[in-house]
Amino acid sequence: MTNVYVAGAAVHPFGKHKDMTTTDLGVSAAAMLLAETGVSPESIDAGFVGSVYGGSLVAQRILQRVGVSGQPVFTIENACASGGSAVHLGWQAIAAGTYDAVLVVGVESLSQFGGGTLPLSTADIEIDQGVVMPATYAMRAQRYLYETGATVSDLTNVSVKNRGNGSLNPRAHLRTAVTSAEVDESRPIADPFRLFHCCPNSDGAAAILLCSEDFAKQLGTPAVRMRASVVLSGQFHTSFRDMTWPDITERAVSAAYKMSGIAPTDLDIVELHDAFAVAEFLHAEAIGIAERGTAYRAVANGDFALDGRVAVSPSGGLLSRGHPLGATGVSQIAESYWQLIGEAGPLQVAGAQVALTHTTGGGIFGVDNGACSVHILTAEI
Amino acid sequence: MTNVYVAGAAVHPFGKHKDMTTTDLGVSAAAMLLAETGVSPESIDAGFVGSVYGGSLVAQRILQRVGVSGQPVFTIENACASGGSAVHLGWQAIAAGTYDAVLVVGVESLSQFGGGTLPLSTADIEIDQGVVMPATYAMRAQRYLYETGATVSDLTNVSVKNRGNGSLNPRAHLRTAVTSAEVDESRPIADPFRLFHCCPNSDGAAAILLCSEDFAKQLGTPAVRMRASVVLSGQFHTSFRDMTWPDITERAVSAAYKMSGIAPTDLDIVELHDAFAVAEFLHAEAIGIAERGTAYRAVANGDFALDGRVAVSPSGGLLSRGHPLGATGVSQIAESYWQLIGEAGPLQVAGAQVALTHTTGGGIFGVDNGACSVHILTAEI
Repeated sequence: MTNVYVAGAAVHPFGKHKDMTTTDLGVSAAAMLLAETGVSPESIDAGFVGSVYGGSLVAQRILQRVGVSGQPVFTIENACASGGSAVHLGWQAIAAGTYDAVLVVGVESLSQFGGGTLPLSTADIEIDQGVVMPATYAMRAQRYLYETGATVSDLTNVSVKNRGNGSLNPRAHLRTAVTSAEVDESRPIADPFRLFHCCPNSDGAAAILLCSEDFAKQLGTPAVRMRASVVLSGQFHTSFRDMTWPDITERAVSAAYKMSGIAPTDLDIVELHDAFAVAEFLHAEAIGIAERGTAYRAVANGDFALDGRVAVSPSGGLLSRGHPLGATGVSQIAESYWQLIGEAGPLQVAGAQVALTHTTGGGIFGVDNGACSVHILTAEI
Repeated sequence: MTNVYVAGAAVHPFGKHKDMTTTDLGVSAAAMLLAETGVSPESIDAGFVGSVYGGSLVAQRILQRVGVSGQPVFTIENACASGGSAVHLGWQAIAAGTYDAVLVVGVESLSQFGGGTLPLSTADIEIDQGVVMPATYAMRAQRYLYETGATVSDLTNVSVKNRGNGSLNPRAHLRTAVTSAEVDESRPIADPFRLFHCCPNSDGAAAILLCSEDFAKQLGTPAVRMRASVVLSGQFHTSFRDMTWPDITERAVSAAYKMSGIAPTDLDIVELHDAFAVAEFLHAEAIGIAERGTAYRAVANGDFALDGRVAVSPSGGLLSRGHPLGATGVSQIAESYWQLIGEAGPLQVAGAQVALTHTTGGGIFGVDNGACSVHILTAEI
């Protein structure tokens, strides 16, 4: 296996972009990436575009407009892990020596649907009966509070921390910090969640350049090494499932730790899938940066703050940065790239050397059936 | 690079299956494949599902129902080349040594949309103004007839040949042979096309097992070797484009010939993308099995018949087998697999040793911008 590098990143700021199509958003991020890295479109060997609702040939629609025209190009769908899956397939092809340079774009326009909660499809009987994402995570939250003794104010702590981080991030959808009182007074969504315990539906795009060692050296832009890339699906079963244990996350991070030789204690930064406040507890525990049942205390103690033991979602996470499905996984890697090369501006985590990114999506067949992507990046190349 | 093998295939017969969801269709093909090969779901390393309109997580929806649960699974979209693209990514991962066994499914339900012509989206101004697929191919047909001296009866010859082949194929959507008179009397669609010059919108699914040499040996099912796998996108430009020359096909087959060391004269079977009758001429010429401007004569001479110089679309092609977008590319490989292992029944091309399959889709930005997939298979392993 060849080493794989991230040698450039760009994000079209997340938010409500009703005047832009999915293609427009993707073009914006991809064009920025090419301009900033100086990579010529002709030197891109292949393109992987992650999107859920981008429509047929969204990869070609975006890439041909930035001059990547004629190469192998693919649109990859895996629910909220679509962007991470596009990254994974690009990584796999470079690691195998098939390609030297791959352009990955993650993109979504959710404004096109007007509003409402995800998933938008009612193809599943659970969804049709109301078990949408806020309801699913609300049940998980109720159980987590019951099991651990955590309270709603612990959930609120997550929102306050991540909105605080996001207020420093010019690419975030929600760029205002919030107080505990503001979170607790926001409108009820699904008990125990208030609005600010939930991530917004966003529009946005992110792009990264993945490449081989030789390509990175020749290009000369700051590069970080992608030490592990894992995509797994949920394991379907209809028997008892512990709603407080995201086994899909645990399986994916275990594979990534094994692949990289990196341990949870090595991590300086974790960008995880905090679609709802409780998700930070569930996934932090499965990722291994807090003992099971204690992540709420780590947040309360400031362990996950920008200057804490391990910065969790320094970019603001989904709660603040927003969640344009296909874009999320790619933007996590972009944000981590800037951290590891020391160019994260006001978000900078001092001395950040190792980052883990995590997205998980679906859950339509029960909790955590769907897809999960995990990536580990290091400043040391 | 490791050699890659096709070690099993299954098709849910194409047709109108209004009582089946996309998932149902995919499950049918995947379950048949596992049952016939005896492969356990646990031994599948990854799944790639090609579909245009299958919706979010269609890969997981299908694969978990046949027991492939927990593995890396991806939904791949590339218009009419979605199935071929899913095959390509599976091939790439095995060739690179990443996986030993990959399950590829191509699937589509077009009945869910009621009817109408493709593309179903009106996101492009050309489509909005009426330049749908039949119109695009009709213009290409007019030009081909003008340039070559071919006539409408030459187009009709393609339909008669392919419907004749399909009448022998229990997996084909349209299983009745037609006479020239029946083609010419079918209702007008887009001049010069009558209905029977156009492929039907179909529902269906196909599945193949791709694997490494060791896996194939241990499994012991009949296997054929996948000598080349290529996916390319169209080259976007707004200047003059020759409508009678599908350059995307020519570029993809050239890459496949180079990769495999196989020449057009070596081919015994070609399954090509005859979405409309003229497409057989255009693509046969680009594939190199007829001199430019002469493919219509090759059809008239019987060169492309089941017992001709090279059998073109022995399975019936899109014109007869039907065209459930994501399923088409995978089914071409399934049909070729049966030919090369000598189990194609009444469709069998005597002594078939080398097959080429070809899909091309899109064209929304002008003729032949979109995606093209080409695969070359040999009986010799």
